Amino acid sequence: MIRGRVIGEVWATRKAPRLAAKKLLLVAEMRVSPDGEHATGRVVVATDTLDAGQGDTVVVAFGSGARNAEAPGSRDVLVDASVVQVVDGSTSPGSP
Amino acid sequence: MIRGRVIGEVWATRKAPRLAAKKLLLVAEMRVSPDGEHATGRVVVATDTLDAGQGDTVVVAFGSGARNAEAPGSRDVLVDASVVQVVDGSTSPGSP
Amino acid sequence: MIRGRVIGEVWATRKAPRLAAKKLLLVAEMRVSPDGEHATGRVVVATDTLDAGQGDTVVVAFGSGARNAEAPGSRDVLVDASVVQVVDGSTSPGSP
Amino acid sequence: MIRGRVIGEVWATRKAPRLAAKKLLLVAEMRVSPDGEHATGRVVVATDTLDAGQGDTVVVAFGSGARNAEAPGSRDVLVDASVVQVVDGSTSPGSP
Amino acid sequence: MIRGRVIGEVWATRKAPRLAAKKLLLVAEMRVSPDGEHATGRVVVATDTLDAGQGDTVVVAFGSGARNAEAPGSRDVLVDASVVQVVDGSTSPGSP
Repeated sequence: MIRGRVIGEVWATRKAPRLAAKKLLLVAEMRVSPDGEHATGRVVVATDTLDAGQGDTVVVAFGSGARNAEAPGSRDVLVDASVVQVVDGSTSPGSP
Repeated sequence: MIRGRVIGEVWATRKAPRLAAKKLLLVAEMRVSPDGEHATGRVVVATDTLDAGQGDTVVVAFGSGARNAEAPGSRDVLVDASVVQVVDGSTSPGSP
Repeated sequence: MIRGRVIGEVWATRKAPRLAAKKLLLVAEMRVSPDGEHATGRVVVATDTLDAGQGDTVVVAFGSGARNAEAPGSRDVLVDASVVQVVDGSTSPGSP
Repeated sequence: MIRGRVIGEVWATRKAPRLAAKKLLLVAEMRVSPDGEHATGRVVVATDTLDAGQGDTVVVAFGSGARNAEAPGSRDVLVDASVVQVVDGSTSPGSP
Repeated sequence: MIRGRVIGEVWATRKAPRLAAKKLLLVAEMRVSPDGEHATGRVVVATDTLDAGQGDTVVVAFGSGARNAEAPGSRDVLVDASVVQVVDGSTSPGSP
Protein backbone atom coordinates (compact mmCIF):
# COMPACT_ATOMS: atom_id res chain seq x y z
CA MET A 1 0.00 0.00 0.00
CA ILE A 2 1.08 3.58 -0.46
CA ARG A 3 0.18 6.86 1.18
CA GLY A 4 -0.96 9.69 -1.06
CA ARG A 5 -3.01 12.83 -1.30
CA VAL A 6 -6.28 13.19 -3.20
CA ILE A 7 -5.70 15.79 -5.92
CA GLY A 8 -8.79 15.38 -8.03
CA GLU A 9 -11.34 13.19 -9.66
CA VAL A 10 -11.72 11.84 -13.17
CA TRP A 11 -14.93 11.18 -15.10
CA ALA A 12 -15.95 9.63 -18.35
CA THR A 13 -18.92 8.48 -20.40
CA ARG A 14 -16.97 5.83 -22.35
CA LYS A 15 -15.85 3.28 -19.80
CA ALA A 16 -15.87 -0.43 -19.03
CA PRO A 17 -19.46 -1.25 -18.02
CA ARG A 18 -18.58 -2.52 -14.56
CA LEU A 19 -16.89 0.79 -13.70
CA ALA A 20 -20.18 2.60 -14.29
CA ALA A 21 -21.10 3.37 -10.69
CA LYS A 22 -17.60 3.94 -9.35
CA LYS A 23 -15.99 7.23 -8.34
CA LEU A 24 -12.39 7.39 -9.54
CA LEU A 25 -9.96 9.55 -7.57
CA LEU A 26 -6.58 10.90 -8.64
CA VAL A 27 -4.14 10.25 -5.79
CA ALA A 28 -0.63 11.79 -5.78
CA GLU A 29 1.89 9.44 -4.16
CA MET A 30 3.89 10.99 -1.30
CA ARG A 31 7.58 10.45 -0.63
CA VAL A 32 9.69 11.39 2.37
CA SER A 33 12.96 13.30 2.21
CA PRO A 34 15.03 14.83 5.03
CA ASP A 35 13.13 18.13 4.71
CA GLY A 36 9.64 16.65 4.82
CA GLU A 37 7.05 15.17 2.51
CA HIS A 38 6.68 15.79 -1.18
CA ALA A 39 4.66 14.44 -4.06
CA THR A 40 6.65 11.95 -6.16
CA GLY A 41 4.81 13.12 -9.28
CA ARG A 42 3.33 9.65 -9.73
CA VAL A 43 -0.46 9.75 -9.88
CA VAL A 44 -2.61 6.70 -9.17
CA VAL A 45 -6.25 6.35 -10.24
CA ALA A 46 -8.11 4.60 -7.40
CA THR A 47 -11.69 3.78 -6.54
CA ASP A 48 -13.07 5.10 -3.28
CA THR A 49 -15.65 3.56 -0.99
CA LEU A 50 -14.78 5.80 2.00
CA ASP A 51 -15.89 9.14 0.55
CA ALA A 52 -12.42 10.70 0.64
CA GLY A 53 -12.29 14.36 -0.36
CA GLN A 54 -9.93 16.73 -2.14
CA GLY A 55 -6.73 17.18 -0.10
CA ASP A 56 -7.25 14.14 2.13
CA THR A 57 -4.28 11.90 2.90
CA VAL A 58 -5.23 8.34 2.07
CA VAL A 59 -3.81 4.82 1.97
CA VAL A 60 -4.26 3.03 -1.38
CA ALA A 61 -4.16 -0.78 -1.77
CA PHE A 62 -3.29 -2.46 -5.08
CA GLY A 63 -3.98 -5.69 -6.94
CA SER A 64 -6.19 -8.29 -5.30
CA GLY A 65 -5.95 -6.23 -2.10
CA ALA A 66 -7.88 -3.53 -3.95
CA ARG A 67 -10.33 -6.02 -5.39
CA ASN A 68 -10.99 -7.42 -1.94
CA ALA A 69 -11.68 -3.89 -0.71
CA GLU A 70 -14.29 -3.57 -3.45
CA ALA A 71 -15.86 -7.02 -3.08
CA PRO A 72 -14.31 -9.52 -0.60
CA GLY A 73 -13.25 -12.78 -2.22
CA SER A 74 -14.51 -11.67 -5.61
CA ARG A 75 -12.49 -12.74 -8.67
CA ASP A 76 -13.93 -10.60 -11.43
CA VAL A 77 -13.48 -7.02 -10.21
CA LEU A 78 -11.64 -4.91 -12.76
CA VAL A 79 -10.28 -2.39 -10.26
CA ASP A 80 -6.55 -2.59 -9.35
CA ALA A 81 -6.27 0.30 -6.85
CA SER A 82 -8.64 1.33 -4.07
CA VAL A 83 -8.61 3.77 -1.15
CA VAL A 84 -8.67 1.65 2.02
CA GLN A 85 -8.03 4.33 4.64
CA VAL A 86 -8.50 8.08 5.10
CA VAL A 87 -5.55 9.02 7.31
CA ASP A 88 -6.18 10.94 10.55
CA GLY A 89 -2.54 11.20 11.55
CA SER A 90 0.87 9.61 11.56
CA THR A 91 4.12 9.71 13.49
CA SER A 92 6.24 10.23 10.39
CA PRO A 93 7.56 13.61 9.25
CA GLY A 94 4.93 15.84 7.67
CA SER A 95 1.78 14.49 9.29
CA PRO A 96 -0.85 13.46 8.60
CA MET B 1 -4.77 2.25 -12.46
CA ILE B 2 -2.93 5.06 -14.15
CA ARG B 3 -3.93 7.96 -16.36
CA GLY B 4 -2.14 8.34 -19.67
CA ARG B 5 -2.36 9.65 -23.20
CA VAL B 6 -2.68 7.50 -26.32
CA ILE B 7 0.43 8.18 -28.43
CA GLY B 8 0.19 5.43 -30.98
CA GLU B 9 -0.53 1.87 -31.90
CA VAL B 10 1.68 -1.16 -32.40
CA TRP B 11 1.18 -4.03 -34.85
CA ALA B 12 2.77 -7.34 -35.59
CA THR B 13 2.38 -10.53 -37.57
CA ARG B 14 4.37 -12.69 -35.14
CA LYS B 15 2.43 -12.72 -31.89
CA ALA B 16 0.91 -15.01 -29.30
CA PRO B 17 -2.13 -16.59 -31.00
CA ARG B 18 -4.63 -15.30 -28.47
CA LEU B 19 -3.53 -11.70 -29.12
CA ALA B 20 -4.53 -12.09 -32.76
CA ALA B 21 -7.68 -9.99 -32.77
CA LYS B 22 -6.60 -7.36 -30.28
CA LYS B 23 -5.67 -3.74 -30.93
CA LEU B 24 -2.62 -2.74 -28.88
CA LEU B 25 -2.24 0.93 -27.95
CA LEU B 26 0.86 2.78 -26.77
CA VAL B 27 -0.12 4.87 -23.75
CA ALA B 28 2.25 7.47 -22.27
CA GLU B 29 1.85 7.71 -18.49
CA MET B 30 1.13 11.23 -17.19
CA ARG B 31 2.60 12.76 -14.05
CA VAL B 32 1.67 15.95 -12.23
CA SER B 33 4.15 18.65 -11.21
CA PRO B 34 3.50 22.15 -9.84
CA ASP B 35 3.46 23.59 -13.39
CA GLY B 36 0.99 21.10 -14.86
CA GLU B 37 0.97 17.67 -16.45
CA HIS B 38 3.81 15.98 -18.25
CA ALA B 39 4.57 12.59 -19.71
CA THR B 40 6.75 10.50 -17.39
CA GLY B 41 8.43 8.89 -20.40
CA ARG B 42 7.08 5.49 -19.37
CA VAL B 43 5.05 3.87 -22.13
CA VAL B 44 2.53 1.12 -21.47
CA VAL B 45 1.20 -1.26 -24.13
CA ALA B 46 -2.51 -1.80 -23.44
CA THR B 47 -5.44 -3.47 -25.15
CA ASP B 48 -8.46 -1.33 -25.93
CA THR B 49 -12.12 -2.31 -26.04
CA LEU B 50 -13.40 1.29 -25.91
CA ASP B 51 -12.09 2.47 -29.29
CA ALA B 52 -9.79 5.13 -27.83
CA GLY B 53 -8.06 7.33 -30.39
CA GLN B 54 -4.73 9.09 -30.80
CA GLY B 55 -4.37 11.87 -28.19
CA ASP B 56 -7.16 10.63 -25.93
CA THR B 57 -6.60 10.68 -22.18
CA VAL B 58 -7.37 7.23 -20.82
CA VAL B 59 -7.33 5.20 -17.61
CA VAL B 60 -5.40 1.91 -17.83
CA ALA B 61 -5.96 -1.03 -15.45
CA PHE B 62 -3.29 -3.67 -14.81
CA GLY B 63 -3.00 -7.31 -13.81
CA SER B 64 -6.18 -9.26 -13.18
CA GLY B 65 -8.04 -5.93 -13.33
CA ALA B 66 -7.05 -5.78 -16.99
CA ARG B 67 -7.93 -9.41 -17.57
CA ASN B 68 -11.35 -8.86 -16.04
CA ALA B 69 -11.85 -5.91 -18.41
CA GLU B 70 -11.13 -8.26 -21.30
CA ALA B 71 -13.16 -11.25 -20.07
CA PRO B 72 -14.81 -11.09 -16.61
CA GLY B 73 -13.72 -13.86 -14.27
CA SER B 74 -11.52 -15.42 -16.93
CA ARG B 75 -8.24 -17.00 -15.79
CA ASP B 76 -6.38 -17.53 -19.05
CA VAL B 77 -6.21 -14.08 -20.65
CA LEU B 78 -2.64 -13.12 -21.49
CA VAL B 79 -3.22 -9.36 -21.37
CA ASP B 80 -1.84 -7.43 -18.36
CA ALA B 81 -2.93 -3.86 -19.22
CA SER B 82 -6.22 -2.62 -20.67
CA VAL B 83 -7.89 0.74 -21.29
CA VAL B 84 -10.92 0.87 -18.98
CA GLN B 85 -11.97 4.49 -19.42
CA VAL B 86 -11.68 7.27 -21.99
CA VAL B 87 -11.48 10.41 -19.83
CA ASP B 88 -13.91 13.27 -20.48
CA GLY B 89 -12.55 15.55 -17.79
CA SER B 90 -10.99 15.84 -14.37
CA THR B 91 -10.61 18.33 -11.54
CA SER B 92 -6.82 17.93 -11.40
CA PRO B 93 -4.37 20.38 -12.95
CA GLY B 94 -4.08 20.06 -16.71
CA SER B 95 -7.50 18.62 -17.55
CA PRO B 96 -8.71 16.37 -18.95
CA MET C 1 10.53 -8.48 -1.02
CA ILE C 2 12.33 -5.30 -0.08
CA ARG C 3 14.36 -4.18 2.88
CA GLY C 4 13.33 -0.96 4.60
CA ARG C 5 13.34 0.99 7.81
CA VAL C 6 10.29 1.66 9.96
CA ILE C 7 9.81 5.45 10.05
CA GLY C 8 6.39 5.75 11.58
CA GLU C 9 2.86 4.57 11.90
CA VAL C 10 -0.40 5.75 10.36
CA TRP C 11 -3.87 5.72 11.93
CA ALA C 12 -7.40 6.42 10.87
CA THR C 13 -11.02 6.17 11.91
CA ARG C 14 -12.39 5.96 8.36
CA LYS C 15 -11.06 2.75 6.91
CA ALA C 16 -12.10 -0.46 5.17
CA PRO C 17 -13.80 -2.58 7.87
CA ARG C 18 -11.41 -5.50 7.59
CA LEU C 19 -8.43 -3.22 8.29
CA ALA C 20 -9.95 -2.32 11.67
CA ALA C 21 -7.62 -4.28 13.94
CA LYS C 22 -4.45 -3.88 11.93
CA LYS C 23 -1.41 -1.75 12.76
CA LEU C 24 -0.13 0.01 9.63
CA LEU C 25 3.57 0.94 9.52
CA LEU C 26 5.33 3.40 7.27
CA VAL C 27 8.45 1.70 5.90
CA ALA C 28 11.12 3.67 3.97
CA GLU C 29 12.70 1.53 1.26
CA MET C 30 16.52 1.33 1.43
CA ARG C 31 18.87 1.40 -1.55
CA VAL C 32 22.59 0.67 -1.74
CA SER C 33 25.17 2.97 -3.33
CA PRO C 34 28.97 2.77 -3.26
CA ASP C 35 29.05 4.92 -0.09
CA GLY C 36 26.52 2.91 1.89
CA GLU C 37 22.78 2.68 2.39
CA HIS C 38 20.25 5.42 1.84
CA ALA C 39 16.49 5.78 1.79
CA THR C 40 15.10 5.79 -1.75
CA GLY C 41 12.35 8.19 -0.68
CA ARG C 42 9.72 5.59 -1.51
CA VAL C 43 7.48 4.84 1.46
CA VAL C 44 5.44 1.65 1.73
CA VAL C 45 2.47 1.19 4.06
CA ALA C 46 2.65 -2.35 5.48
CA THR C 47 0.83 -4.36 8.12
CA ASP C 48 2.90 -5.83 10.93
CA THR C 49 2.37 -9.05 12.84
CA LEU C 50 5.91 -9.11 14.30
CA ASP C 51 5.68 -6.02 16.51
CA ALA C 52 8.40 -4.09 14.66
CA GLY C 53 9.32 -0.75 16.19
CA GLN C 54 10.43 2.68 15.04
CA GLY C 55 13.90 2.49 13.42
CA ASP C 56 13.86 -1.27 12.92
CA THR C 57 15.15 -2.67 9.63
CA VAL C 58 12.52 -4.98 8.21
CA VAL C 59 11.77 -7.15 5.18
CA VAL C 60 8.41 -6.42 3.51
CA ALA C 61 6.56 -8.92 1.27
CA PHE C 62 4.03 -7.82 -1.35
CA GLY C 63 0.97 -9.15 -3.14
CA SER C 64 -0.24 -12.62 -2.30
CA GLY C 65 3.00 -13.11 -0.35
CA ALA C 66 1.75 -10.42 2.02
CA ARG C 67 -1.73 -11.92 2.13
CA ASN C 68 -0.28 -15.31 3.00
CA ALA C 69 1.68 -13.69 5.83
CA GLU C 70 -1.61 -12.32 7.17
CA ALA C 71 -3.70 -15.47 6.67
CA PRO C 72 -2.15 -18.49 4.91
CA GLY C 73 -4.06 -19.59 1.81
CA SER C 74 -6.69 -16.90 2.31
CA ARG C 75 -8.13 -15.26 -0.81
CA ASP C 76 -9.98 -12.26 0.60
CA VAL C 77 -7.34 -10.32 2.55
CA LEU C 78 -7.17 -6.71 1.42
CA VAL C 79 -3.57 -6.14 2.51
CA ASP C 80 -0.88 -5.97 -0.22
CA ALA C 81 2.27 -5.39 1.91
CA SER C 82 3.29 -6.99 5.19
CA VAL C 83 6.39 -7.08 7.40
CA VAL C 84 7.68 -10.67 7.30
CA GLN C 85 11.01 -10.24 9.07
CA VAL C 86 12.66 -7.91 11.59
CA VAL C 87 16.30 -7.92 10.48
CA ASP C 88 19.03 -8.75 13.01
CA GLY C 89 21.91 -8.33 10.63
CA SER C 90 23.22 -8.67 7.10
CA THR C 91 26.46 -9.03 5.21
CA SER C 92 25.71 -6.15 2.85
CA PRO C 93 27.15 -2.64 3.25
CA GLY C 94 25.51 -0.65 6.03
CA SER C 95 24.28 -3.44 8.27
CA PRO C 96 21.84 -4.37 9.51
CA MET D 1 2.80 -4.82 -21.18
CA ILE D 2 5.86 -2.89 -22.23
CA ARG D 3 7.71 -2.39 -25.48
CA GLY D 4 11.43 -3.13 -25.51
CA ARG D 5 14.38 -4.17 -27.61
CA VAL D 6 16.10 -7.54 -27.45
CA ILE D 7 19.70 -6.87 -26.36
CA GLY D 8 20.90 -10.36 -25.59
CA GLU D 9 20.33 -13.73 -24.10
CA VAL D 10 21.27 -15.29 -20.79
CA TRP D 11 22.19 -18.90 -20.06
CA ALA D 12 22.89 -21.06 -17.07
CA THR D 13 23.45 -24.61 -15.92
CA ARG D 14 22.17 -24.03 -12.38
CA LYS D 15 18.52 -23.13 -12.70
CA ALA D 16 15.05 -24.05 -11.48
CA PRO D 17 14.24 -27.41 -13.15
CA ARG D 18 11.13 -26.17 -14.93
CA LEU D 19 13.16 -23.41 -16.66
CA ALA D 20 15.35 -26.08 -18.26
CA ALA D 21 14.06 -25.89 -21.82
CA LYS D 22 13.34 -22.17 -21.94
CA LYS D 23 15.26 -19.47 -23.82
CA LEU D 24 15.66 -16.36 -21.66
CA LEU D 25 16.04 -13.03 -23.46
CA LEU D 26 17.34 -9.73 -22.10
CA VAL D 27 14.92 -7.00 -23.17
CA ALA D 28 15.76 -3.31 -22.70
CA GLU D 29 12.63 -1.28 -21.94
CA MET D 30 12.05 1.69 -24.27
CA ARG D 31 10.81 5.12 -23.22
CA VAL D 32 9.63 8.03 -25.35
CA SER D 33 10.91 11.59 -25.03
CA PRO D 34 10.32 14.61 -27.29
CA ASP D 35 13.42 13.73 -29.35
CA GLY D 36 12.53 10.08 -29.94
CA GLU D 37 12.94 6.72 -28.28
CA HIS D 38 15.58 5.72 -25.77
CA ALA D 39 16.32 2.78 -23.53
CA THR D 40 15.26 3.43 -19.93
CA GLY D 41 18.18 1.36 -18.68
CA ARG D 42 15.78 -1.14 -17.13
CA VAL D 43 16.38 -4.67 -18.39
CA VAL D 44 13.75 -7.39 -18.19
CA VAL D 45 14.49 -11.11 -18.44
CA ALA D 46 11.68 -12.70 -20.48
CA THR D 47 10.94 -16.08 -22.00
CA ASP D 48 10.33 -16.23 -25.72
CA THR D 49 8.07 -18.55 -27.69
CA LEU D 50 8.12 -16.41 -30.86
CA ASP D 51 11.79 -16.79 -31.76
CA ALA D 52 12.62 -13.10 -31.40
CA GLY D 53 16.16 -12.15 -32.38
CA GLN D 54 18.81 -9.66 -31.32
CA GLY D 55 17.66 -6.09 -32.02
CA ASP D 56 13.99 -6.96 -32.48
CA THR D 57 11.38 -4.67 -30.92
CA VAL D 58 9.04 -6.78 -28.82
CA VAL D 59 6.06 -6.51 -26.48
CA VAL D 60 6.54 -8.22 -23.10
CA ALA D 61 3.65 -9.31 -20.86
CA PHE D 62 4.05 -9.77 -17.10
CA GLY D 63 2.55 -11.76 -14.25
CA SER D 64 -0.23 -14.20 -15.03
CA GLY D 65 -0.39 -12.64 -18.51
CA ALA D 66 3.09 -14.07 -19.07
CA ARG D 67 2.14 -17.41 -17.54
CA ASN D 68 -0.89 -17.63 -19.82
CA ALA D 69 1.40 -16.97 -22.79
CA GLU D 70 3.52 -19.93 -21.70
CA ALA D 71 0.67 -22.31 -20.82
CA PRO D 72 -2.96 -21.04 -21.00
CA GLY D 73 -4.83 -21.33 -17.70
CA SER D 74 -1.85 -22.97 -15.99
CA ARG D 75 -1.25 -22.11 -12.34
CA ASP D 76 2.24 -23.48 -11.73
CA VAL D 77 4.41 -21.73 -14.33
CA LEU D 78 7.36 -19.97 -12.71
CA VAL D 79 7.84 -17.42 -15.48
CA ASP D 80 6.74 -13.80 -14.80
CA ALA D 81 7.66 -12.13 -18.12
CA SER D 82 7.20 -13.39 -21.67
CA VAL D 83 7.53 -11.98 -25.19
CA VAL D 84 4.02 -11.93 -26.67
CA GLN D 85 4.64 -9.97 -29.85
CA VAL D 86 7.51 -9.21 -32.25
CA VAL D 87 6.68 -5.69 -33.43
CA ASP D 88 6.50 -4.96 -37.16
CA GLY D 89 5.72 -1.28 -36.80
CA SER D 90 4.01 1.42 -34.83
CA THR D 91 2.63 4.92 -35.26
CA SER D 92 4.58 6.33 -32.32
CA PRO D 93 7.80 8.33 -32.64
CA GLY D 94 10.83 6.19 -33.41
CA SER D 95 9.16 3.24 -35.12
CA PRO D 96 9.02 0.35 -34.99
CA MET E 1 12.24 -11.44 -14.13
CA ILE E 2 15.28 -9.30 -13.54
CA ARG E 3 19.01 -9.89 -13.59
CA GLY E 4 20.99 -8.88 -10.52
CA ARG E 5 24.08 -9.52 -8.45
CA VAL E 6 24.12 -11.16 -5.03
CA ILE E 7 25.51 -8.56 -2.59
CA GLY E 8 24.75 -10.17 0.73
CA GLU E 9 22.44 -12.07 2.96
CA VAL E 10 19.99 -11.02 5.64
CA TRP E 11 19.08 -12.87 8.84
CA ALA E 12 16.62 -12.55 11.64
CA THR E 13 15.18 -14.28 14.67
CA ARG E 14 11.83 -12.50 14.53
CA LYS E 15 10.19 -13.58 11.30
CA ALA E 16 7.03 -15.06 9.85
CA PRO E 17 7.05 -18.74 10.88
CA ARG E 18 6.97 -20.11 7.35
CA LEU E 19 10.14 -18.18 6.48
CA ALA E 20 12.01 -20.06 9.20
CA ALA E 21 14.10 -22.37 7.06
CA LYS E 22 14.69 -20.03 4.14
CA LYS E 23 17.92 -18.27 3.18
CA LEU E 24 17.21 -14.67 2.12
CA LEU E 25 19.64 -13.03 -0.30
CA LEU E 26 20.12 -9.35 -1.06
CA VAL E 27 20.22 -8.95 -4.86
CA ALA E 28 21.24 -5.66 -6.48
CA GLU E 29 19.34 -5.10 -9.74
CA MET E 30 21.55 -4.42 -12.77
CA ARG E 31 20.86 -1.89 -15.51
CA VAL E 32 22.54 -1.40 -18.87
CA SER E 33 23.88 1.91 -20.17
CA PRO E 34 26.04 2.64 -23.22
CA ASP E 35 29.23 2.20 -21.14
CA GLY E 36 28.29 -1.17 -19.60
CA GLU E 37 26.41 -2.54 -16.64
CA HIS E 38 25.73 -0.80 -13.36
CA ALA E 39 23.69 -1.42 -10.24
CA THR E 40 20.42 0.52 -10.27
CA GLY E 41 20.61 0.93 -6.50
CA ARG E 42 17.42 -1.07 -6.10
CA VAL E 43 17.89 -4.07 -3.80
CA VAL E 44 15.56 -7.06 -3.85
CA VAL E 45 15.29 -9.61 -1.02
CA ALA E 46 14.88 -13.06 -2.61
CA THR E 47 14.83 -16.65 -1.45
CA ASP E 48 17.36 -19.01 -2.96
CA THR E 49 17.04 -22.72 -3.68
CA LEU E 50 20.06 -22.84 -6.02
CA ASP E 51 22.80 -22.06 -3.49
CA ALA E 52 23.87 -18.81 -5.16
CA GLY E 53 26.90 -17.14 -3.61
CA GLN E 54 28.19 -13.63 -3.00
CA GLY E 55 28.95 -11.89 -6.32
CA ASP E 56 26.99 -14.31 -8.48
CA THR E 57 24.83 -12.92 -11.27
CA VAL E 58 21.33 -14.33 -10.89
CA VAL E 59 17.87 -14.15 -12.42
CA VAL E 60 15.08 -13.37 -9.92
CA ALA E 61 11.40 -14.20 -10.52
CA PHE E 62 8.57 -12.33 -8.77
CA GLY E 63 5.00 -12.91 -7.66
CA SER E 64 3.43 -16.28 -8.30
CA GLY E 65 6.44 -17.08 -10.49
CA ALA E 66 8.53 -16.95 -7.32
CA ARG E 67 5.99 -18.95 -5.37
CA ASN E 68 5.96 -21.63 -8.05
CA ALA E 69 9.77 -21.78 -7.83
CA GLU E 70 9.40 -22.45 -4.10
CA ALA E 71 6.51 -24.92 -4.32
CA PRO E 72 4.87 -25.61 -7.70
CA GLY E 73 1.14 -24.87 -7.79
CA SER E 74 1.13 -23.88 -4.12
CA ARG E 75 -1.18 -21.03 -3.08
CA ASP E 76 0.02 -20.21 0.42
CA VAL E 77 3.73 -19.41 0.00
CA LEU E 78 4.58 -16.02 1.47
CA VAL E 79 7.64 -15.43 -0.72
CA ASP E 80 7.34 -12.90 -3.59
CA ALA E 81 10.87 -13.08 -5.06
CA SER E 82 13.08 -16.10 -5.70
CA VAL E 83 16.36 -16.82 -7.48
CA VAL E 84 15.51 -19.07 -10.44
CA GLN E 85 18.85 -19.09 -12.27
CA VAL E 86 22.55 -18.59 -11.52
CA VAL E 87 23.84 -17.00 -14.71
CA ASP E 88 26.84 -18.57 -16.49
CA GLY E 89 27.01 -16.04 -19.28
CA SER E 90 25.14 -13.72 -21.57
CA THR E 91 25.52 -11.98 -24.91
CA SER E 92 24.68 -8.56 -23.52
CA PRO E 93 27.28 -5.91 -22.63
CA GLY E 94 29.10 -6.62 -19.38
CA SER E 95 28.76 -10.38 -19.20
CA PRO E 96 27.88 -12.48 -17.39
